[in-house]
Order: sequence, then structure tokens, then C-alpha cells
Amino acid sequence: MAAAKGPRVGVVGATGMVGRELLDCLEKRRFPVVELRPFSSGKTRQSVRFRGRAIPAPGVDKAALAECSLVFFVSADEVSEALAPELARRGVWCVDDSAAFRLDPEVPLVIPEVNASALAHNKKLIAGPNCTMTGLAVAGFPLQRRIGLRSVRAASYQAVSGAGKAALEEFFAQAKALSKKLDATGKAPALPALKAAALPGPIAFNVIPQVGRFDAGGNSSEERKVAAELRKLWDAPTLAVSVTAVRVPVVRGHSLAAWLTLSRPTSPVEAAPLLAGAPGLSFSEDGSYPTPLTLKGAGPVYAGRLRQGAADDELALWIVSDNLLKGAALNSVQIAEELLKRGWLAA
Amino acid sequence: MAAAKGPRVGVVGATGMVGRELLDCLEKRRFPVVELRPFSSGKTRQSVRFRGRAIPAPGVDKAALAECSLVFFVSADEVSEALAPELARRGVWCVDDSAAFRLDPEVPLVIPEVNASALAHNKKLIAGPNCTMTGLAVAGFPLQRRIGLRSVRAASYQAVSGAGKAALEEFFAQAKALSKKLDATGKAPALPALKAAALPGPIAFNVIPQVGRFDAGGNSSEERKVAAELRKLWDAPTLAVSVTAVRVPVVRGHSLAAWLTLSRPTSPVEAAPLLAGAPGLSFSEDGSYPTPLTLKGAGPVYAGRLRQGAADDELALWIVSDNLLKGAALNSVQIAEELLKRGWLAA
Repeated sequence: MAAAKGPRVGVVGATGMVGRELLDCLEKRRFPVVELRPFSSGKTRQSVRFRGRAIPAPGVDKAALAECSLVFFVSADEVSEALAPELARRGVWCVDDSAAFRLDPEVPLVIPEVNASALAHNKKLIAGPNCTMTGLAVAGFPLQRRIGLRSVRAASYQAVSGAGKAALEEFFAQAKALSKKLDATGKAPALPALKAAALPGPIAFNVIPQVGRFDAGGNSSEERKVAAELRKLWDAPTLAVSVTAVRVPVVRGHSLAAWLTLSRPTSPVEAAPLLAGAPGLSFSEDGSYPTPLTLKGAGPVYAGRLRQGAADDELALWIVSDNLLKGAALNSVQIAEELLKRGWLAA
Repeated sequence: MAAAKGPRVGVVGATGMVGRELLDCLEKRRFPVVELRPFSSGKTRQSVRFRGRAIPAPGVDKAALAECSLVFFVSADEVSEALAPELARRGVWCVDDSAAFRLDPEVPLVIPEVNASALAHNKKLIAGPNCTMTGLAVAGFPLQRRIGLRSVRAASYQAVSGAGKAALEEFFAQAKALSKKLDATGKAPALPALKAAALPGPIAFNVIPQVGRFDAGGNSSEERKVAAELRKLWDAPTLAVSVTAVRVPVVRGHSLAAWLTLSRPTSPVEAAPLLAGAPGLSFSEDGSYPTPLTLKGAGPVYAGRLRQGAADDELALWIVSDNLLKGAALNSVQIAEELLKRGWLAA
């Protein structure tokens, strides 16, 4: 009997929201895992389900990770920092979903539909992008590549799941408490002692224009990440990017209202076929549009409402993508699939 | 004993959401109403409360309105169209919150903090602006007046109350139903047979990038209104404006992420004092910012997060205003106060 084929795969942070989505992606996309080694980055003993079986997910074990040929990091920046560089030096492919290495010039930052070419056999540590900019990076790329972009402005509508489990639980508690008090006269729900610890303010029935800390220039860390990562992903170091990152009371699915300024006048009629043919993008041309709760088509990124912006060299576009999938778990698995396809991933 | 002083005031649409806010504004701001004549634009018999008394609000009575010296219209476009021009011709001041006459070149479109100068003694019909653009018109005006703006881009986060009572009730029913099903694994709430009739899709735990109907160019009626009204209010016919209008699951309070392109390079340091001194604007300079549920300061428009945009001649700004107050009822009362101050309103 032939031995089962495929790499031994480690997952650091397997019990978190993105971790569970990642296992689900591996299973649904039939990624050839010969052995799964899931680790919790928390302290409680937990297990995960994979291919119908419960597998214990203990605390991180460096030696056990070193025996894998591929490790996914879907945990905190500090966890990736402590483990990934060393494992990569020892020859383990590390696909990191944290922000720790995204802007490191030695680390490829990859969305396969955009820049699979950045992958290199000797660069074992690979970063996936911030979940907010994934949709923009995929949807705007055909315009950047075929026509060229001079600047990008984007306002985000970011789901609470992007801020993690504690934020989501806080949101749900607020939503349940306030839903009981809704008043059809249009009064805003009165604010009881709403617990707001994971997010900078109450999020149920509210919007919060702060994702991360503000710098001296007034931009949040999220806004800086989107700009810097977009420039790196598109290899467009001089691209001007201005983002307003806003948390909205949505469970999952990040949306963006974007304005793209091109290197020359471009009409929606010229741009539409480029978007319609873009890899990884479901583009609505029929006046319909994606919303976080109503996504139609193959995805994993969705866009619609393409129209002229404030000038003849500017286009406006509405973009939605699933922050836990294309913004995190799915993109990591797509990177691993690319490694497999190239024969770089030892079975 | 001296007779009570002040105008006889009619209110058409007094029993609606904005109507009730309007009566509240008249009372709180001690507007000198000698007699209130409230009318319902609906068919059911209703009454309103004013200065502690219940006053019947029957169906509209033209003759009774013609005896007023001031009539507020806070009802549908068709109701204003049917009544206001004739009343104005007969010398009754008509302050119209509907969209019916806003772009009519013979009708002043007025936000008192911006263009009280557009009021004229012989123009008895006066329009108040769309609730979405009020915040932008007030907050951006000092930059337009002192430096000059070339273009404006704005993404809106619009409260459901702006779409009326039926939309709000639909939102509440969805919020209550979905709140019971929230799942801390980050799964989006499953969509049961959510009633979505007043809005183009489910709004609870969602965002909808459609406010009104789309035209051939792909802009919604709301987006066109904001652009056209802003140009008229600022008397800036060549201003380029691009808006993405999005409904969000907020009860009241419209927010905007705006980018303002100036006629010359302008830093936040130069612009901040202009905003800090702007009439009607509470401007946060300390890194804090307004949200629909947490407004601090005098208002009625709130702004913060002023920072450099995508170029040195561009500023980014976050703006919030109460769509039922400054976006509607309060602005109408402020217009009437201006008429009173000028001695144009007969007691």
C-alpha cells in the first residue's frame, strides 16, 4: 500500500476564528495534508475538527513544528516573530497571516492572483496581506497593470470579526442589549453601560472611524498598513494612497468605497472588461452590487458600481471581500497551493 | 393684557419622525409660535404634543395653512409640490425640507451657517438641503470660502432613519431576529426570510451601497443630490464632486469620510483653525472623533480626524451630523429664526 502523500502541515493559532476557517479551506479545497499538527496560541486545552476527526491542539511545540514542511501562522504578530524566521531558516515553508513581516523587504507579500511572481524558492517565509486591502489589491490590480494608477482613495466598512473574537463577543452583547430597546420614533438607542474594551467605542448601531492607533499625522495603523502593503504588492512605490478605515456593525465581510486615479483618462466602458476578466474577482456589471450579507458569484473578491469619479481619469468602485477567507485563511491556502504547483513543497 | 406675540405656524407632516423633531426644536429653542397648526400627511387621525399639550393633527387643510405666516414642510416631495408654491405666492413663508425645489434656481437652498445671504424677502419658498450633505456643506465651507476647493470625494455611512419610518421598522425587525442567532465563531448570521421592502436589501449586520435609484452613469439619486446641492449651496458651479452613498445599520446620525482637494497645497495645521472657528461645527483637534452614538460638543455638525490626503493639496476629514436634526428639522427652524431676526416674519 502506498503511503499517503502530501506535506506535514502545522497550523499555529488553529483554534482561533481564522484558524478554523483555514482548516475548513484545507479540507474543502482537498489540500493534500498527510499529517495535520494544529497548535493553539491560547492557554486553554482545545481541539479542532479536521476531515471529520477531532485533533488536539496543544500549546505551540517548536520541535514538532520543525518536523513540518509547511506551517501556517494565523495568530498574533509576536507568535510569528518568535517562531517563523527560525523555522524558515531551517527550511520550513512559513505562510504568515500576521502583520509582523509584511513590509520586510526580504519577505514576499503575496496575493497569488496579483503577484505569485514574488514567490521564490529560497524565501521560505511568506506573508499574506492585511484583510482590509485584499479586496482593493485584487480589484484594482487589472487597472494598475494595464493602465497604471497614480493614486487611490478608499473608505472602509470593516466587519467586527476582523478585530478578533473578543471584539465580536463585545459586539454581540451590545447588539442583543440594544435590540431590546429600539424605538420606532427614530431615537438613537440609549447607551447603557455598554462594555467597550476590545474596540475603542460601542460598535452596535454605530460606526467607529478608528482601526488601530493614530500616528502623529493622524492616520491609524490600519490606514498605514493598507497604503504600505498596496504599494509593495503592486510594486508601485510612488503610488499615493489615502485611506479612512472605519469599523461597522457587520459580522464578516469588509467593504470599500474606492476612488482610483489612472495615468490617463479612462471610462467605465474601457475599464469594465479589464475587471470582468480579472483573476479572483466577481465583477457585477448589471447594476447589482455585492454586500457583506449578499455575495453572488465565485469570488473570492466581489466588486460593482464601477463609474466615473470626480474627473475623467478617475473611477469609483465598490468592493467587498470576506475578511476571514480571502483576507486571511483562503489567501494563505492559495499561497500554499502555488508552492505545491511549483513542486517546492516536499511531500 | 397684551396678546401673545409671534407667527401662526403650520407644520405639514407634523406626525412623522422629522415632524416630531421639528416641534421639539421649536419648543426647546423657544421659537415664538403664537398658534401651532400641525397637519398629518398620513390618513390616520393623530395628534402631536407641543408645549405640554396634545394638539390634533388632521389631514392637510389648505385654507388653514393660508392663514399662517410660516409653514414648515416635513413630508413627501409631492405634498410640498402640491401646496408650497401657491402658499408662497400668497405671501406665506414656506420652509421646505423635501427635495422638490432644492435645485430650482428661483428657490434659495439654505443652511444658515453657510449661505443665509441667499435668503430674500421676495422669495417666500425656501428649501433645506439633503440630510447627507449637510455635514459636508457646513464642515467644508470654511475651506471653500477661505482657500477654495477644486473637488470633493465622500463616502457616506447613512443612518436608516434617513430612509423613513418603514425602513427603520424593517431594520429593527431584522436586528431583533438576527441578534438571537449570533454565533461567536464569526459566521455571518444566516439570512432567514428577512423582510426587505423599504430598503433594497437586508440592512441589519450589513451595509448597502445604494440610496435611491441608479442613473445611466451608475450614480444613485442620493449621490447626484449631494453633488448638485453642494454646488448650489457653496455657489461653486464647477466643483467636481464624487459621492458613494451607503446605508449602514445605524439608527440616526449620518457620517462621511471626505477628501477635499484645495486650490493650493494646504496642511492640516493651516486648515485646523479655520474648522475650529466655523459656525455650527464642533471640530475635534485632540485625536478624538465623533461617532453617531458618541457626539460631544455643541454641534450641530461634528468633525474630526483632519489629516493630509493623497496629495499636499488634499485634506481628509471625518464628519458626523444628526440627519433628523441638522439634516432636517433643526435646519428648517434655523432658517425660520433667520427670517424672524430680519423682521421678515409677521407676528
